[in-house]
Formats: sequence, structure tokens, C-alpha cells
Amino acid sequence: MALSLTILGCHSATPRTFAYPTSQFLSINNEHFLIDCGEGTQVQLRKHKVKFSKISRIFISHLHGDHYFGLIGLISTFSLYQRQTELHIYGPKGLKEITKLQLKLGKSFLSYEIIFHELTSKKSEVIFENNKVSVATIPLKHRVYTNGFIFKEKIGERKLNISAISQINDIKNCDYQNLKNGKDFTKDNGDIIKNTALTFKTKPPKSYAFCSDTCYKPNIVPIIKEVNLLYHESTFLEDKSDLAKKTLHSTAKEAAKIANDAQVEKLILGHFSSRYTDETLFLKEAITVFEKTILAKEGLCIEL
Amino acid sequence: MALSLTILGCHSATPRTFAYPTSQFLSINNEHFLIDCGEGTQVQLRKHKVKFSKISRIFISHLHGDHYFGLIGLISTFSLYQRQTELHIYGPKGLKEITKLQLKLGKSFLSYEIIFHELTSKKSEVIFENNKVSVATIPLKHRVYTNGFIFKEKIGERKLNISAISQINDIKNCDYQNLKNGKDFTKDNGDIIKNTALTFKTKPPKSYAFCSDTCYKPNIVPIIKEVNLLYHESTFLEDKSDLAKKTLHSTAKEAAKIANDAQVEKLILGHFSSRYTDETLFLKEAITVFEKTILAKEGLCIEL
Repeated sequence: MALSLTILGCHSATPRTFAYPTSQFLSINNEHFLIDCGEGTQVQLRKHKVKFSKISRIFISHLHGDHYFGLIGLISTFSLYQRQTELHIYGPKGLKEITKLQLKLGKSFLSYEIIFHELTSKKSEVIFENNKVSVATIPLKHRVYTNGFIFKEKIGERKLNISAISQINDIKNCDYQNLKNGKDFTKDNGDIIKNTALTFKTKPPKSYAFCSDTCYKPNIVPIIKEVNLLYHESTFLEDKSDLAKKTLHSTAKEAAKIANDAQVEKLILGHFSSRYTDETLFLKEAITVFEKTILAKEGLCIEL
Repeated sequence: MALSLTILGCHSATPRTFAYPTSQFLSINNEHFLIDCGEGTQVQLRKHKVKFSKISRIFISHLHGDHYFGLIGLISTFSLYQRQTELHIYGPKGLKEITKLQLKLGKSFLSYEIIFHELTSKKSEVIFENNKVSVATIPLKHRVYTNGFIFKEKIGERKLNISAISQINDIKNCDYQNLKNGKDFTKDNGDIIKNTALTFKTKPPKSYAFCSDTCYKPNIVPIIKEVNLLYHESTFLEDKSDLAKKTLHSTAKEAAKIANDAQVEKLILGHFSSRYTDETLFLKEAITVFEKTILAKEGLCIEL
């Protein structure tokens, strides 16, 4: 699976019996990330059968409680289970200070190392990259410093066309990596064979953008242009657009406008305010602007 | 009801799908307290229909996560619901610093005032008292500074024996409070009528002692002597007494010894380690020493 996203929680403000604050588990090109970590996330991870040891990096959008109050508990539990591999945490400046203080006061010594990557930039920046994926920030506008995150698969190696290759005697095993990397092949007699004649192209890389919390911010559109999947907060409906403006949140319609302008493949709405008992209203409002919209719900798993 | 205790969570270390870390809601003589506040406590409060606004004071035993990681979320939710009445929090030094830092980084301004009572003494001390109840610390021994708490009803006012009073012409309405307070009555002619002839005694006051987390510590016995209800941690069974000693926890048998030596009316065991799947083993072990033992479980409500 190129990309798999599991919604662990998608409600705003405060955990309730059947409404969990923001947290998502993302697997992309075999890298595994946790995005935000509201109170109760570790229980949600268990409930939805996500192995704790899979999580290598945690991305925290901002320091409102419904997005990170579950982090210190998860960090502690990792240690209880004798985690050895280092954990990378990306989030606003201050997260390290809080975490260190809590560990100090509890006289807790972790079994593993945490590497904090504290974010302060107001411009989009690549904050993690390896040969499989890249992760960049999406600067958002909320009541505190906030980033969304865009996760992109790297373009994979091309696949060898063994049948075509077997007809060219000059090609040796040691040439395979160059072919996978897209290079043309030069025969001993100087003839050049185009790479496309010897390899197949791979599937186009997948991408996922997470945008929560934020007011309507059209200047994120170029950053998230044509992503396969966009999660955008929609705390309110248009009936509360004044409140959305005041609290720097978005309405379902505004989220849909962003999705439409960015020409994304699919939009997921979330971060619903508890004042709405009928969440289908969010969907109804959004699809008037952008049809390929779905609603986040606890346990929803989207695979691309 | 003189005393009502609701167990919100009674497992050790880490929240799981059906095992919640320590938290209890206590109503005593119409005062309402929260004792410890592990992650997820606010959801447990909702689940067990405890009104948030009832909680006037929160007592935190120590700064291990399974006893306080839910506090900041609860504090935030109180504010979201526009709480106006002040909240008193009693707990180890450091709790105020953590809370203030988290509120500052989230740019959160609470709708109400928190009054922190930071505890540092290693001797039992009265930390709250009014005309209905008193609360004192029980110094415990654990890996960090830890207190248990003993909650005692005050001896109530005596009840007026209206039939007897009506036969004494000299007694006026303004004398009633003195009678309720136990004073004898002096007639105009100088005769003294014993208070017991004019009032009924009230029910004996109830008391509750909460002891978690701690190693076996027999010198708490005089402090908790003859309480009606004792909650004592029993993280392990005797088969893991070495581990109990090492981690400064108690076994079920040790908890029962404390209950027996203190001649309490009833013992509740809790803070069970997740390594035991059959919790009735805790009961079996404890009743060999102290028969009137029960097991804590989520949602259990004990009324005295």
C-alpha cells in the first residue's frame, strides 16, 4: 500500500465518550507517522491495532490541548515497553520544554532517545526527507503558531523490463541500478538504448496534506496543489462563519474551496465542533463546492 | 449520603482500552473532590455522569503520569465550559509550573481562577478544612514525593428534639444554634438542662483514606486508624514481592496487613498491574489477612 491513513480522532476541543480529539496514523511508502496526539491517542492506537513500535516520527501541528495533550502519555508508555529506537518529534517551540519538565518531575528516565525538531519558521520548509518520503510544513493561521504538514512519496525506482533486457547481451547485473535510476544504456558498439525501452515506469507518487487548525487561508493552495488526499479542518458550518473568523477556524465550505482551488483528488473534513449533532451537514455544505469530499470519523482508514 | 466514592480508573501505568489509570470522585458530607487524574479522566467523568461543575477541589498524589496526565485536559475543559468558580488543586511542588507552562504555550486564558496548594511536607498535615470536612495528607513512600489523603466528615450539629424543647418556655429560637452546637441550656431561674435532654446525637462521621502509590509503610497505620473505608494500592501479588520492593509498590497481602493493623471497616484494592489478567487473585490473597476486602473496578460506586 502506497499510502494508508487511519483517523484516530477528528473532533475539536475536548474528548467525549465517543468523540476523540485530533490524531491520525499515516503510513506512506512504508514510513509510519503519527500526526497530532490529543488526549487518549494511545488508547485509540490500541483500539485500532496500530503497533506502537511502528511510529518513528510524530508531527504536532500546534500547542492547543486537543492536538497534543496525549503526547506525554504516549512517550511514557513507549518507555514502559522498553522502546529502543529513537523517536523524532516535530512541533512548535515549547514542546521540548514541557516534555522535559514533565519527565524531570516524574523522575522518569526514558529507555530511548527523543530528538525534538522545534519549528519556528513561518514559511513552508522541508522538515524530514529520506529516499522514500519528504515532509514539509504548511504554514497555517490560528490563534497560536500552527503548521499543517504535507507528506510526499518520493518517485520510486523504475522497474526492470527483464524480457527486453534479456535480448541485450551487453547488459550485466551491475548495470541494473543505473537502469532503475532512469539512465539510458550505452552498448559496447556505442549504440544508445533509451531507458524507457528497458524499464517500466512506476506508479505516480502519492501525497497527503494535513491542515488543522486554521482559518480560511487561500495562500496554502500552491503548497498543496494536486495532492491525492487533503484533510482540512471544518470546525463550523457557514451558519457560524462569524465564529469561525473570530476563533480562526474554517467552515466546511471554506475547506471545500481550498480543495477545489488546489485541485486535490479527495478532501476529508474533520475537527467538527460538538455543537453540531448531525455531521452530514458538513458534507452537504462542502459538496456544493467540491464533490469528492468525505467526512472523517474515528477508525476510518483510507488507502491509496 | 454521607460518603460516596466512584472509581473512575484503578489500573497502573498506562491507559488501555478497558483499563483506566487512577482517578476517583469522592462526595463527602456534600463536598465533592477529585482524587488523582490520569489520562482520560474527563471522559470517565462524563461516562459515569459526574457533573464537572461539582468538583471544587482536586487532590493529586504524585507526579507519575498515570496519576495526573489528565489534569491539564480537565482544567482546559472546565474553561471551555466557562467555569466561574475557583478551583483548588493540591499536589506536589511542580504541578503549578507544568500547568502554567502548558497554559502559556497554548495562549490559554482560563475563565476561572486556579489556586494551587503545593505540598512539600513529609509529615501528615491538614491541607483543607471547613465546617463539613477536613482533608489531611498521608505521607507515602514511592519513587517520587507522594501523599495519600484522608478525608473526614466533621461531627455534625446535633439535631433539635423539638418535642422536648417545646416543654421549656424559656428556650427561644435564638438559643437553637447553641443547642445544635452541644451546649447545655440555663433557664431563667438558673436551672441547667443537659444538652442531651434537648437534642439528638448525629450519626458518627465517616472517613475515607486514599493510599496510592506506596511501598508497604506500616507507619501510616496511626493516621488511618479505624477509617470507614481505605483504598490501598496493590500493584502486585506476593509472587512479585521483589518487584514490589524494587519499584516501591505494595502487594495485595501488604495492603491487607495495613488494613488489618489500622482496623478499618473496609478495604478497596486497586492500581493493579497489567501483568495479571485474573484480578480475583488480588482478592484471594488479601482476604487471607483481612476479610472485608473488595476490588476496585471502573464505575464501582461505594456509598456509606
